[in-house]
Amino acid sequence: MNAAAPFSNAAVRQLETELVLSSWSVQSQLNPLVIAGGAGCMLWDYEGNQYLDFSSQLINTNIGHQHPKVVKAIQDQAAQLCTLAPSNATAVRGEAAKRILARAPQSGPRSFKKIFFTNAGADANENAMRMARLYTGRDKILSAYRSYHGNTGSAIVATGEARRVPNEYARGHVHFFNPYLYRSEFNATSEAEECERALRHLRRVIEAEGPTSIAAILLESIPGTAGVLVPPQGYLKGVRALADEFGIQLILDEVMVGFGRTGAWLALDHFDVQPDLVVFAKGVNSGYVPVGGVMISDQISEFFQNRYFPGGLTYSGHPLAMASIIATLDAMAEEGMVDNARRIGEEHLGPGVKALAARHPIIGETRGKGVFWALEFVSDPVKRTPLPPARLAELKAAALRRGLLVFAVENRFHLAPPCIVNADQVKQALAVLDEVLAEHGKL
Amino acid sequence: MNAAAPFSNAAVRQLETELVLSSWSVQSQLNPLVIAGGAGCMLWDYEGNQYLDFSSQLINTNIGHQHPKVVKAIQDQAAQLCTLAPSNATAVRGEAAKRILARAPQSGPRSFKKIFFTNAGADANENAMRMARLYTGRDKILSAYRSYHGNTGSAIVATGEARRVPNEYARGHVHFFNPYLYRSEFNATSEAEECERALRHLRRVIEAEGPTSIAAILLESIPGTAGVLVPPQGYLKGVRALADEFGIQLILDEVMVGFGRTGAWLALDHFDVQPDLVVFAKGVNSGYVPVGGVMISDQISEFFQNRYFPGGLTYSGHPLAMASIIATLDAMAEEGMVDNARRIGEEHLGPGVKALAARHPIIGETRGKGVFWALEFVSDPVKRTPLPPARLAELKAAALRRGLLVFAVENRFHLAPPCIVNADQVKQALAVLDEVLAEHGKL
Repeated sequence: MNAAAPFSNAAVRQLETELVLSSWSVQSQLNPLVIAGGAGCMLWDYEGNQYLDFSSQLINTNIGHQHPKVVKAIQDQAAQLCTLAPSNATAVRGEAAKRILARAPQSGPRSFKKIFFTNAGADANENAMRMARLYTGRDKILSAYRSYHGNTGSAIVATGEARRVPNEYARGHVHFFNPYLYRSEFNATSEAEECERALRHLRRVIEAEGPTSIAAILLESIPGTAGVLVPPQGYLKGVRALADEFGIQLILDEVMVGFGRTGAWLALDHFDVQPDLVVFAKGVNSGYVPVGGVMISDQISEFFQNRYFPGGLTYSGHPLAMASIIATLDAMAEEGMVDNARRIGEEHLGPGVKALAARHPIIGETRGKGVFWALEFVSDPVKRTPLPPARLAELKAAALRRGLLVFAVENRFHLAPPCIVNADQVKQALAVLDEVLAEHGKL
Repeated sequence: MNAAAPFSNAAVRQLETELVLSSWSVQSQLNPLVIAGGAGCMLWDYEGNQYLDFSSQLINTNIGHQHPKVVKAIQDQAAQLCTLAPSNATAVRGEAAKRILARAPQSGPRSFKKIFFTNAGADANENAMRMARLYTGRDKILSAYRSYHGNTGSAIVATGEARRVPNEYARGHVHFFNPYLYRSEFNATSEAEECERALRHLRRVIEAEGPTSIAAILLESIPGTAGVLVPPQGYLKGVRALADEFGIQLILDEVMVGFGRTGAWLALDHFDVQPDLVVFAKGVNSGYVPVGGVMISDQISEFFQNRYFPGGLTYSGHPLAMASIIATLDAMAEEGMVDNARRIGEEHLGPGVKALAARHPIIGETRGKGVFWALEFVSDPVKRTPLPPARLAELKAAALRRGLLVFAVENRFHLAPPCIVNADQVKQALAVLDEVLAEHGKL
């Protein structure tokens, strides 16, 4: 299995679709893009075709593909020690925790003391919910209808979107409506009104469920897969105030938006809010090795000092993952990637998608921060009717034919290039989209 | 972070226990062994101390530590492409699936068609339960009280042992007693009687729960953490017959016992039984990169051809993990590791632990297969009173002082060296245990 092997795209695609069950799919409808390798914002297949990756795969390659320092760190750790039980200790584990804690939420009375490592975002959410339930002695988890928190037993039921429904085998989960002005559940007409009404709604759900039954409110700082739903200023602070009022723990899920994606180390840094637990994965090492985890504030860290923690996993603090976290976070800091993501968002990608929306009325709304933007397509801009799936697929395919890979979901494109993307690459992507919409984007 | 860095054991231990929340622990009581590197069956710390690893960490390093072919495969794949979304295809994914399917259960009418890849065993069990529930349209999962199936929402509730209790937030889980003659729940006095009574008990649970409400029976082929509970011949075939009678899917969890551990490719191969779904992790790549998955039989594979599968994860089919699976399974075959595990078990480790038990009455029972054996310690051999935790800890520490690392749980040692262990290493380990028991193992 090496780069020089004479694979054809068709053979690779056929073997994989025949033998591998694919996530969130009807298997007979699969026609995956074949990828052999990549570098930075580029990917290529086995036949020399190149793609500009504005999906960062599943919004995870924040440092781009194949960052040489991170590849080397993985190779070096592989040469030294690949795997180790979490009950033993090794140098990279403490060092990785130190790097992550340096980026923990600063704005508030809590200090973050410990990291619990998992394999990815889903089991990190599982463990954050476990900690909140044990710490409070309460059962219920409140989370948003427009959310995605992972695919395991409790995480998929905490998830609010429709993928939850065939999987509802965990109890104690209650969902509420989070702010989304473009499709307001509260008949609001301004961000301020949406914020106030969404907070009132959440207060009413808390009161109606019984505050003393609620362990935690679990929210993505910026709901990602649900549509890059940047919350109104004041919303997360308002949620924090409600949590404090009722003795509820606040868990912010930064799996998709953490570590540079929104032009800040954590997306919560935009909102002057401090949760009790922060869930991370993806950006922490760009997904180079499967890993996730929970940042744990002082009071919950202290709680488990003398009490048994009934959670754990074989690959918690996996050495290869730890080495990749250290190298990733060091490279991000040394090379100013977070600042680049912020600047690109403010100066190029943000203005660019706004300009695109102005030219193409099929774009009903754009939302985003840093290198994370949604284009919401509508077949009727007045009624805001979502573009049908078949037409979105057509747009995605047209972009791909021009070498641009985007993340497509429901009636939206999410543009999420690596944090290292440059102005020229943004210009190129926007030009492709302009062309695609001119050709296929008539109302 | 490299091998030459001047770490002290104390500094590594202190940083890690200060900053990392450890699995299944009271944090203030941690005193982890520090490990810097390893090779084969050996590990060492930062100060030159060496350990013979008869734990295989968490019973996962079946090929031993740092197998050069697997290390190289990870390094080569890291150089080519570290991460890729599961919606795209790449050569290593289909090739890894092919290698695993070649080891799927042969004994029965089913053929195994597809692999679903996860990050580890817990989320593999989650997805196997999801598949069985969707395929049958039924809710309940039956699993054994003496079992461990992982730490995520549904997996931890499927788990039967006490770690389940503070985590019971999933519904539809029912537990039954599995066979364990030494501590029979059925007042049995022979393996045949235990088998027959355990099957009758399971039939009664199925009838009492309502057969048409039961999606699946989930069992470890040989329950591992629960005590290396090798089932009586006929038990798993009997479970299969019950499943067939009532239209229930049979899921066998091979996370700990799969891929060589018991001297067969899969532990189920010892029992002439074919499940509908097989769950794997650990041994499939010795845990060098976090990965797990589900082997899916033809009828369930076919079911999802034209139906949406509502499960998935970002790192499903992660390229580094895939490359490590290919290299691991190829190396195991080329180097005859499964046969070595069988032979060592039959000729050295099995007879050795029996001889040890004959010399030390504190050993109440020994059980095992291949390179997977339990020594069950008792403070009273007649009443079979489990040895108290403090005394087990004393035995474990005494072994460690003599350079032997074992897996200790409840009142047992589990001896689980890599499949590549040789007769001399077994002899050495048994000599250490003999010495430890002579000194600390008086009744």
